[in-house]
Amino acid sequence: MAATPDPRKRILTGVRPTGALHLGHYVGALENWIRLQREYECFFLIADYQVSDYADDFQRVRDSIFEVALDWLAVGLDPEGSHFLIESGVPEHAELTQWLSWWVPLGMLERNPTLKAEMADLELRHSVPVAFFNYPMMQVANILMPKAHLVPVGEDQLPHIELTREVARRFNRMFERQVFPEPEPLVGRIARLVGTDGDAKMSKSKNNAIFLGDDKETVLLKVRGMYTDPTRLRATDPGHVEGNPVFMYHDAFNPNEDEVNDLKERYVLGKVGDVEVKTKLAAALNAFLDPIRERRSYYEARPDLVREALHAGTSHARTVAQATMAEVRDAMRINYLG
Amino acid sequence: MAATPDPRKRILTGVRPTGALHLGHYVGALENWIRLQREYECFFLIADYQVSDYADDFQRVRDSIFEVALDWLAVGLDPEGSHFLIESGVPEHAELTQWLSWWVPLGMLERNPTLKAEMADLELRHSVPVAFFNYPMMQVANILMPKAHLVPVGEDQLPHIELTREVARRFNRMFERQVFPEPEPLVGRIARLVGTDGDAKMSKSKNNAIFLGDDKETVLLKVRGMYTDPTRLRATDPGHVEGNPVFMYHDAFNPNEDEVNDLKERYVLGKVGDVEVKTKLAAALNAFLDPIRERRSYYEARPDLVREALHAGTSHARTVAQATMAEVRDAMRINYLG
Repeated sequence: MAATPDPRKRILTGVRPTGALHLGHYVGALENWIRLQREYECFFLIADYQVSDYADDFQRVRDSIFEVALDWLAVGLDPEGSHFLIESGVPEHAELTQWLSWWVPLGMLERNPTLKAEMADLELRHSVPVAFFNYPMMQVANILMPKAHLVPVGEDQLPHIELTREVARRFNRMFERQVFPEPEPLVGRIARLVGTDGDAKMSKSKNNAIFLGDDKETVLLKVRGMYTDPTRLRATDPGHVEGNPVFMYHDAFNPNEDEVNDLKERYVLGKVGDVEVKTKLAAALNAFLDPIRERRSYYEARPDLVREALHAGTSHARTVAQATMAEVRDAMRINYLG
Repeated sequence: MAATPDPRKRILTGVRPTGALHLGHYVGALENWIRLQREYECFFLIADYQVSDYADDFQRVRDSIFEVALDWLAVGLDPEGSHFLIESGVPEHAELTQWLSWWVPLGMLERNPTLKAEMADLELRHSVPVAFFNYPMMQVANILMPKAHLVPVGEDQLPHIELTREVARRFNRMFERQVFPEPEPLVGRIARLVGTDGDAKMSKSKNNAIFLGDDKETVLLKVRGMYTDPTRLRATDPGHVEGNPVFMYHDAFNPNEDEVNDLKERYVLGKVGDVEVKTKLAAALNAFLDPIRERRSYYEARPDLVREALHAGTSHARTVAQATMAEVRDAMRINYLG
């Protein structure tokens, strides 16, 4: 922790600890995080308060937190310049959530389509927990706590950023003080990466993901099984490149543009088989993943370094949170005892 | 703060800081608090997180917190043996609220008629704040935090205690550890004191309250204006004692049973005027309030003692809360880094 304040603008971003990260996370978010981690002071948050689906299975949460931190280190996030933090390790998040919630009417949450969908799903199961209404407010508190200027997010999180901006404005106006900046969102290069099965979104639960931790052989097998162009029955049939997951991955992860263009040209003409396209994709993905695997091995052999990154980051974030809460209390004049 | 743990069982109870306390508070709650404050280790809580109606007017909350503490000292609560605490001064309340909320479905809250009524009222105004769902969970967290065994409450709060017991059982069962005792409720001698206007409940907002801080003259004027038996037009008409607010107050506050019985007998026979009944009631109330006024004057002249009581109590409660949260985290196994 530096003794002098960090002069950089701040980023707050994060994930829920629901398991290992995959290629979709990389192009949708991590890539930006890595790119911006020098320019900004970054707070990378693991949102364990917000894990509704298995709040009764903390062993899984515990394992996932470690997995996420390991993934972050593996992709090259640097805990020396940035802060890896566990949400519940900064209980000020709950405190700020509580206060902010008085000024947000339910209707404001219901404008968020992602939330509406989740809510409908829970209602079907007759099991909306009270905390369900807190978690979007908790996300607001997460962002406002370090006074983040920029929030790299997935596309489906844009309404949350809008809500955060609205709450920041409301707080500043109500207490006549510019406590919180209005954060800007930053969507990743590929807002939503298709799954290996052609589904619109890569996700663990759909079993259509290539994980950052997959080994070479697993990647090869997953790529071989990928959905391509369903209208193309033989290698000599002309194929479609547009909307074809295999070529979307080539575009996203194969830095050899000549190779990709050549494959596309031949694919359209029916002059290349799926096997060649997929073998080259697997090779590109493996080349992309190799340095990630190398760093992962390094940290896997040194779990104390992973824990230390979480410990140091959470501890620093708590110091920052306490400073923010002191300002919040001062603005609200709830320092009743002086 | 004692260096050795207090061996007494614990009480948690409190009020929202919505203004000065009145006779209804006394017979509904305070009387029990005073009676039990030696036998139990008492946590008297001022619930400033839960003030929805004027969350945008913290100056009023600030004033009310001081008023409530002054009222408590005036009635004889002893901050040496008990703890006066400000809810938001123990942010662990927000933290515990957050966790517990995952295991309480909305339906459980909706079973509470008091909440349902409040909710309906807010819906009419199209302004249900997100925090509305938190505050009942916050009350649960308030009670569980010091592991209270007994909760002296108003009658309308009984469903909240039932909810608290259910959450305690659920937590203990889920994490296979007896972290929280199931608290028992204790309703006051007079669950609900009628207002001076005959309304079912004395309350500040209905302008039918005699406050613990009212001076002699004010009490006399309020008693003179009291609603009595609407069927009795002249002092010589036979009157009704049952359901007559003036006699309800005599029963509650006049320790001279012979005088009360004599007045009742003559009232039923039409042999006493309202003036005599009311003058004697005012005298009894003023005799009851005199020692309270005396202590109030003492503390009014020494505001630092009031603040010190709040400061010491809140600080002690926070120590207790941190110990409870350590246990909660341990039971939930969310000491990820520990």
